[in-house]
Amino acid sequence: MTLDTVLSHIDADLPKATDRLLTLLRIPSISTDPAYKADCDTAADWLVRDLQSLGVEASKRETPGHPMVVGHADGPGPHVMFYGHYDVQPVDPLELWNNPPFEPALEDTPKGRVIRGRGSSDDKGQLMTFVEACRAWKAVHGALPVRVSLFFEGEEESGSPSLIPFLKENTAELSADIALICDTSLFGENTPAIMTTLRGMLQEEVTITGPSKDLHSGLYGGAAMNPIRVLSRVLAALHDDQGHITIPGFYDGVPVLDPEVARQWDALNFDHTAFLGAVGLAEPAGETDRTVLEQLWSRPTCEVNGIWGGYTGDGFKTVLPSEAHAKISFRLVGQQDPFAIRESFRNMVQDMLPADCTVTFDGHGASPASQMSTDHPAFEKARKALSDEWPNPAAYIGCGGSIPIAGYFKDYLDMDAMLIGFAKDDDQIHSPNEKYDLESFHKGIRSWARILAELAT
Amino acid sequence: MTLDTVLSHIDADLPKATDRLLTLLRIPSISTDPAYKADCDTAADWLVRDLQSLGVEASKRETPGHPMVVGHADGPGPHVMFYGHYDVQPVDPLELWNNPPFEPALEDTPKGRVIRGRGSSDDKGQLMTFVEACRAWKAVHGALPVRVSLFFEGEEESGSPSLIPFLKENTAELSADIALICDTSLFGENTPAIMTTLRGMLQEEVTITGPSKDLHSGLYGGAAMNPIRVLSRVLAALHDDQGHITIPGFYDGVPVLDPEVARQWDALNFDHTAFLGAVGLAEPAGETDRTVLEQLWSRPTCEVNGIWGGYTGDGFKTVLPSEAHAKISFRLVGQQDPFAIRESFRNMVQDMLPADCTVTFDGHGASPASQMSTDHPAFEKARKALSDEWPNPAAYIGCGGSIPIAGYFKDYLDMDAMLIGFAKDDDQIHSPNEKYDLESFHKGIRSWARILAELAT
Repeated sequence: MTLDTVLSHIDADLPKATDRLLTLLRIPSISTDPAYKADCDTAADWLVRDLQSLGVEASKRETPGHPMVVGHADGPGPHVMFYGHYDVQPVDPLELWNNPPFEPALEDTPKGRVIRGRGSSDDKGQLMTFVEACRAWKAVHGALPVRVSLFFEGEEESGSPSLIPFLKENTAELSADIALICDTSLFGENTPAIMTTLRGMLQEEVTITGPSKDLHSGLYGGAAMNPIRVLSRVLAALHDDQGHITIPGFYDGVPVLDPEVARQWDALNFDHTAFLGAVGLAEPAGETDRTVLEQLWSRPTCEVNGIWGGYTGDGFKTVLPSEAHAKISFRLVGQQDPFAIRESFRNMVQDMLPADCTVTFDGHGASPASQMSTDHPAFEKARKALSDEWPNPAAYIGCGGSIPIAGYFKDYLDMDAMLIGFAKDDDQIHSPNEKYDLESFHKGIRSWARILAELAT
Repeated sequence: MTLDTVLSHIDADLPKATDRLLTLLRIPSISTDPAYKADCDTAADWLVRDLQSLGVEASKRETPGHPMVVGHADGPGPHVMFYGHYDVQPVDPLELWNNPPFEPALEDTPKGRVIRGRGSSDDKGQLMTFVEACRAWKAVHGALPVRVSLFFEGEEESGSPSLIPFLKENTAELSADIALICDTSLFGENTPAIMTTLRGMLQEEVTITGPSKDLHSGLYGGAAMNPIRVLSRVLAALHDDQGHITIPGFYDGVPVLDPEVARQWDALNFDHTAFLGAVGLAEPAGETDRTVLEQLWSRPTCEVNGIWGGYTGDGFKTVLPSEAHAKISFRLVGQQDPFAIRESFRNMVQDMLPADCTVTFDGHGASPASQMSTDHPAFEKARKALSDEWPNPAAYIGCGGSIPIAGYFKDYLDMDAMLIGFAKDDDQIHSPNEKYDLESFHKGIRSWARILAELAT
């Protein structure tokens, strides 16, 4: 079975593959918002039918949340398990989208053709690169070069509450020799990457209550404690002047950066001025004694993702509110323990409150960081296949994001994972006007076709 | 003309007077929200017709914002000008109202009968106490005991943008011997009050911009500055640990409390534990070296009335937002200059920003504090009339709220103002479930009937 004919088929079939992706993108499968529950179901059904159409034995599996999709296709040689997620982020602020987020379209830009729409990059477009590679192998040779399982989740953007129970209940079915995950970025325009470190995640929603009801700031202002003032003090205290996070014990388990890895990262000549300049910034905001690449790949963070309290409408209302709220997330590295940090964070907030204010915490996701071992031979095979497809050789890199699935595969299925993706930094994932370059989609499909061939050797 | 027959008429007419107030309360005249512009107009029209029905020569006066209502009724003796406002505060959070805010009703509570609904206390109910007193005088004697002008505004809750131009254009028509303003509270259940000090107000809306668009906190977190972090630092820095406000020059013009006034205030035996306890608090939040009454009546404040940024919906979105916003108001005393403080505040915020973050300011209301002189003989006459109506003698007191109109009457019409009101601390003005005690309404009408009689002497 030759690879070249598969690659040619991919090139010829690209318009149809793009149409299939556009169909999937039209389904508004926002997993965090209960209003879109039926749409998540529709997306899962669509994927089951699409896998079945190419000869994969696929089924939808119900969970207490959104369904999983699982498929299997026989083949010779090693057994790989591919993971992606069909759910997408919310779309607000809607007014910043140039076109409706679920009416995707091809668009010509100065940097090339792009597929515009929510989920085009994260993760429907990436997920479909693998499906299309399988389709091409099947079309040309009637079979896959290796044994393949596929596993699609619908809760990745909302904390994956059903994932671990599902892995535990289906260990035998989901286990393979290695996992393939397509939810990450290229290192650069022409440089593919395999991510070997991923930050973990801890999410906390905080509500501070002062007075028992909203008050008139003229009648009570000065004498009654304002919970926004308390919340501001708490949030301001989370970082010191050097950008370090001040929660007691927060840095326990943060590893010293391996000098060899530091050397590799230096060799990447990462242009942090351009990276920050692209989003209107100039000054690195993290720990002042770390490079920007370290801040992004090897150091933990604390970010306020949302804040609200009091009157936020037009005009002015001199209210002294009863409550103030914030959503705070932490990216974790190395051996940092999300549950220990949750407890320390909560204690710190509690200790900062005036005696007559109260706080409630609503804990969302909590997952530790992942560090892949590259000992498995599949890593070097994938690196060769990627280097064959792209202008520059593939790199092992770190990632600031949190894809806890890789750690779960290790913990629950005893399986290493290769994180390979084709997104670009300007894809605006989680933001208005998300896009996926047509080149990412096309060369992504070709990359997986090559990787499947290489894994069969 | 005897007062007793007027008071008897008021007692007998109370059900009808209450019905008239309920009709006015049904008009949702929220001045700060453009969606209610027509309703503000409707409220003004209703008042014009009501004044005309009792023989007052009344008219609606257009402004660039909401209309004014002006009326005149001849009479012997001195000329008084009564001021009130027909606009009301927004009603959110709507879900905390037990009944719709604009479907007012009488309600029996353990503490007596109340009129429940937005504006019942602030200021439609208070405004109507004076109108009903005039109606009773007219009904019984066919005439008022003094010459009366009435002036109702529809922008008091939204910074009164049209007020000063209107005063300047209608100086001769609006000037009188003294102004009467009904927008304040009793000192206690049984103790009426004339307010002689009022705090001023400065309102600022702040928007801090970090990245040029919303970012993924995994891809950028740690390296890109989060504007909520910057805003929190700014807000946390506005007060020191002793509750003092830290804006440079903020306390310029704050007077030392007159020892005689301090003595009077001590004599009021204000129960700050009960005052704070009623709203679920125990610790005074203001300057630690001041009594609660000083914090409320004689000291300036800084409150965050609203804050928002990032994702505030259900679930979690790991966004690193482009913008963070806050609405901040300052209550001012003595000779504090709102415009100098605005400039100093803006400079302080600007100085706290990282070099690559920007801030924009949207200035709302700005008015200095007022200090009435009680030399005008009307003050002692009103104090006698109030003391005749209520169980305890009337007191001259301070007020934490800001009613800039009193200062404007002095500045633009060269007229002293007497601030007399019948609201109670538990009226929940600006909050859900606003109410006005039927006793406040009834004895308020009787109080004005007595004051008009006393001013004629």
